[in-house]
Amino acid sequence: MLPTIEDIRAAAKRIESVAVRTPLLRSDALDEATGATVFVKAECLQRGGAFKIRGAYNKIASLAPEERARGVIAFSSGNHAIGVATASRLFSIPALIVMPADAPKMKVDATRAQGADVVLYDRLTESREEIGARLAAERGAVLVKPFDDPLVIAGQGTIGLEISEAIAPDIVLVPASGAGLACGVILALPNARVYAVEPQGHDDIARSLASAHIESNPPGIRSICDALLLERMGEITFAIAREKLAGALVASDESVRAAMRFAFQHLKIVLEPSGAIALAAALDGALDLKGKTVAIIASGGNVDAGSFAAVLGA
Amino acid sequence: MLPTIEDIRAAAKRIESVAVRTPLLRSDALDEATGATVFVKAECLQRGGAFKIRGAYNKIASLAPEERARGVIAFSSGNHAIGVATASRLFSIPALIVMPADAPKMKVDATRAQGADVVLYDRLTESREEIGARLAAERGAVLVKPFDDPLVIAGQGTIGLEISEAIAPDIVLVPASGAGLACGVILALPNARVYAVEPQGHDDIARSLASAHIESNPPGIRSICDALLLERMGEITFAIAREKLAGALVASDESVRAAMRFAFQHLKIVLEPSGAIALAAALDGALDLKGKTVAIIASGGNVDAGSFAAVLGA
Repeated sequence: MLPTIEDIRAAAKRIESVAVRTPLLRSDALDEATGATVFVKAECLQRGGAFKIRGAYNKIASLAPEERARGVIAFSSGNHAIGVATASRLFSIPALIVMPADAPKMKVDATRAQGADVVLYDRLTESREEIGARLAAERGAVLVKPFDDPLVIAGQGTIGLEISEAIAPDIVLVPASGAGLACGVILALPNARVYAVEPQGHDDIARSLASAHIESNPPGIRSICDALLLERMGEITFAIAREKLAGALVASDESVRAAMRFAFQHLKIVLEPSGAIALAAALDGALDLKGKTVAIIASGGNVDAGSFAAVLGA
Repeated sequence: MLPTIEDIRAAAKRIESVAVRTPLLRSDALDEATGATVFVKAECLQRGGAFKIRGAYNKIASLAPEERARGVIAFSSGNHAIGVATASRLFSIPALIVMPADAPKMKVDATRAQGADVVLYDRLTESREEIGARLAAERGAVLVKPFDDPLVIAGQGTIGLEISEAIAPDIVLVPASGAGLACGVILALPNARVYAVEPQGHDDIARSLASAHIESNPPGIRSICDALLLERMGEITFAIAREKLAGALVASDESVRAAMRFAFQHLKIVLEPSGAIALAAALDGALDLKGKTVAIIASGGNVDAGSFAAVLGA
């Protein structure tokens, strides 16, 4: 069952009192650099520092009370972890989060600060799906998937709904890996051309669109975009993307760093690498944006101070 | 003539299409740290990276067309410079800005990027007032004062108006030096207790309130708050502050750095030192905020990348 615009509207109602209606930022410098009229949806200003609370809260709020009371489990490199942990705290239910041992420290800390139990695993030698399934079975807890769930996609789609209430973009650029956010935005903005942006060398979405099958990334690829390193998309997100995504672009780590510096200097927001990748594609000229109305989703800002300082100093 | 709430409402209409209605940011961590319900008015997200466009545009828009056509002149350590330069560009009039040679490079660059002529002077050996008066006389240009002008104060007061349309704060904390922003906010929020926050050791506002005269700061005081190092308040701002300011607090450079890091980590915004000083006072516990609804004005985010990286690394 694919989510619909009605599911997104229902999600918007559910999250209204807990999520931030983030601003669309404007920048003379960004308009000049792209030749477009650009609006940056600043989800770094979202509760928890990234968009993930939208889908996580929508999912958890939709559970039957007795099911919800048993608690939830999630696996995540960080932002979904914070989102699930925050939503769980708001419902006063336990949350167990399985995170890679090399996740940014501030993401692990922020997840724990919301009261969640965090279990770390080795990204290269262990399977988070196996760990998660075992722990979920032991606890009877509900698994909150990071993207391949209609309620999660509908929650992320509220970003598109908010954009549509302010502007009518020709083009939307969205950071993507599992593509839950991109698919939610597609459903909310049916008249826009929505592009996924993924890390260079980690372009499974582009390859999946080309082959019409879900393609995987080989293990061990390194990128500073720590939130965008999933092995592959999901069944539901692929079904939506295949039908409705305008295309997939890539950006290099160096472009992402430049976009983080641009956001620092001209937008005065803190973006984590993954959160800056759609901006990077726009500044790179990966797509001709001249004369268009463009929405860029800046999906998160959870980055360690040391890493950010290193990017600024480069 | 002191400005009134009607002047602020008129200013809000004038700036509506050019200034950003900046968001009020919330943070669980900030509420916890203060025991209050805190809203951060993020003026770093304002056009030009600081609140100053509000007053500058309101002043320039209010000039007679033939007067405005001769161009404007301003002296400023940076943010007022950017505000006047931006407003002048929007009106297609020439702007000449007198800036200290030790102003942050990005502020000088941003002023020039708006098309203004910049004249640098030595803060310790030259008088910017004399330079400004001479140049204004030579050019027949109108001087746009940074704070001691009813139209400038009314423009800055639109921040208070926007706050009042969303919340009814008990307390408002405002970065202050010339106190144009603080006085505008006071007039827009007559039921709130408005406090000025100034750099430690540069506490002329506190001393002026105590002595009931305009006190000066000795020259040569150093602080990382480069935008808050004026010698003294103005006649108009003192008249308002004396009557209506709840008090003046101070924050140390170290507290300001900690507040910049807090804003980076929990709010995901870039604050310059002066823009973080009201947040610093709140985090310091300079005032008991427990149980109160508090608005903190984060007045600007124009800081060099190297300086910001150094603060993050400390």
